Amino acid sequence: MTEIARTPVTILGLGAMGTALAEAFLAAGHPTTVWNRTPEKAAGLVDRGAMRSTDIADAVAASPLVIAILSTFPTTLAALGPAAEALTGRTLITLNSGTPSGARDMAAWAAEHGIRYLGGAIKNVPAAVGKPDTLLYFGGDRAVFDESASTLRVLGGDLVHLGAEPDLAALYESAVGATLLPALIGFFEGAAMLSARGIQAATMVPYAVKWLQMIESVLPVFADEIDDRDYTRPGSSVGLFHDAIDDDQELAESGIDVAWHEPMHDLLRRAVADGHREHSISALFEIIRQPYRSDMDVADQFD
Amino acid sequence: MTEIARTPVTILGLGAMGTALAEAFLAAGHPTTVWNRTPEKAAGLVDRGAMRSTDIADAVAASPLVIAILSTFPTTLAALGPAAEALTGRTLITLNSGTPSGARDMAAWAAEHGIRYLGGAIKNVPAAVGKPDTLLYFGGDRAVFDESASTLRVLGGDLVHLGAEPDLAALYESAVGATLLPALIGFFEGAAMLSARGIQAATMVPYAVKWLQMIESVLPVFADEIDDRDYTRPGSSVGLFHDAIDDDQELAESGIDVAWHEPMHDLLRRAVADGHREHSISALFEIIRQPYRSDMDVADQFD
Repeated sequence: MTEIARTPVTILGLGAMGTALAEAFLAAGHPTTVWNRTPEKAAGLVDRGAMRSTDIADAVAASPLVIAILSTFPTTLAALGPAAEALTGRTLITLNSGTPSGARDMAAWAAEHGIRYLGGAIKNVPAAVGKPDTLLYFGGDRAVFDESASTLRVLGGDLVHLGAEPDLAALYESAVGATLLPALIGFFEGAAMLSARGIQAATMVPYAVKWLQMIESVLPVFADEIDDRDYTRPGSSVGLFHDAIDDDQELAESGIDVAWHEPMHDLLRRAVADGHREHSISALFEIIRQPYRSDMDVADQFD
Repeated sequence: MTEIARTPVTILGLGAMGTALAEAFLAAGHPTTVWNRTPEKAAGLVDRGAMRSTDIADAVAASPLVIAILSTFPTTLAALGPAAEALTGRTLITLNSGTPSGARDMAAWAAEHGIRYLGGAIKNVPAAVGKPDTLLYFGGDRAVFDESASTLRVLGGDLVHLGAEPDLAALYESAVGATLLPALIGFFEGAAMLSARGIQAATMVPYAVKWLQMIESVLPVFADEIDDRDYTRPGSSVGLFHDAIDDDQELAESGIDVAWHEPMHDLLRRAVADGHREHSISALFEIIRQPYRSDMDVADQFD
């Protein structure tokens, strides 16, 4: 006859991910209050038992744990303005994407109002919410993380506290996310190559997946090379990539826009010029961490 | 008392991958002949039972199946010149990387000399040679593929015949490989972001792997959008990526070279200008398949 009282939670922001979070909390039996700028978005959740509040301060006052998943940190700060007083003494966790400085601004605002704050990120698609291997990571006060962990586990089984600095999730989000757009553009370019031959993009998916899995398998090696600043035992050398630069000519002739390759080729050329030809491709780390200085910039100085 | 006679094979080119291939054939009991431009590289293989030939025509004459894994198609053609006559009537399979036109040149040369030719690629690292899920794919005469398959299975369990055109493996290799350099540079950039905060690259590896797995999970959706030319049900919109462009300012200030992002941002801007803001990010396919035309090019015409 025992009944475990689930922590009430409030979700601010009902985009695809916010909606998935609210659904997960409802399914796990948490009293769930939802707020969205356009309240119509909450209709489906209300049908499943969520409480809807059209006033953000009321929404916040309903729960000790508030999760904001609005588009950016500036948007979140603007929306939370009227709820600052109501948030005092409560736990606020942001899961939006954004930059480390945005997270630091958020943390400073929270501290000013006596709000217990964690900056977090959920590293997956909405359909993955609640799965045992779905990852969420957080920066901020360890005690706040420990207190919230059992509730947050409803959203994903792989919870990580990155450290006490509240911008660490945004930092890792930026660092890890740096592969996304370039990898996708690479895939779309590959699809364009096949399309030029009348072959469907779907035929390359299994090979592209294997290719990404191969990349995954070598990332630990590259990370160690970078952490040791030792590029002298290359699996794939800078020279190997450098020598393939001319292959672009053929792509361009088949109607593919290869202009986005040019600055990557420039990184390779600068790496070769800096003596990295026989080094691991991870030596590009040494080039990319330096402020960019093209020949044109140098020439401009002498104009 | 039966003993199965294994097909003799010849490996031309003893880089890391060529050596791994030869080791796999030796381990599987195939009489294995090896040739390399600098014959010293064969020493370890000879110790394990390989026959070394310093003359490429002799090396080729030793086996009905010859696998060339030299650096490029032009290098391969130049090396094979003296062995053309010896190759007549034998099967030649190339596994080097290179462009589709390089593969077509190779196929034309092979046809001219009555050589049975498959253009192939092995989609993995040397350490993966011989594993059941290691992928090799081939273009060229189906009968030659079928005949060679049982021998090639020594190199990897996942063998695919892409079609009769001998440049298909090079085409898929180029298409699938288009994600490699951009994804790696993205990872190195992420490492540089962490480094600027005194955090080791190794700490991001598990998150980067999850991130790539997430990308893998959405590739089939993007491929279908591209094949249907229908971008109207976006999981991630062009606008979402477009609105993050300004975040680069903060990266640049922390000493990261973000110059390589600029043409990717240009693709996003052109996609928005073409009405794709609310469309799936896969709509970049429509932009990248058109020849590039920057403002500067247009301005140049009126100079």
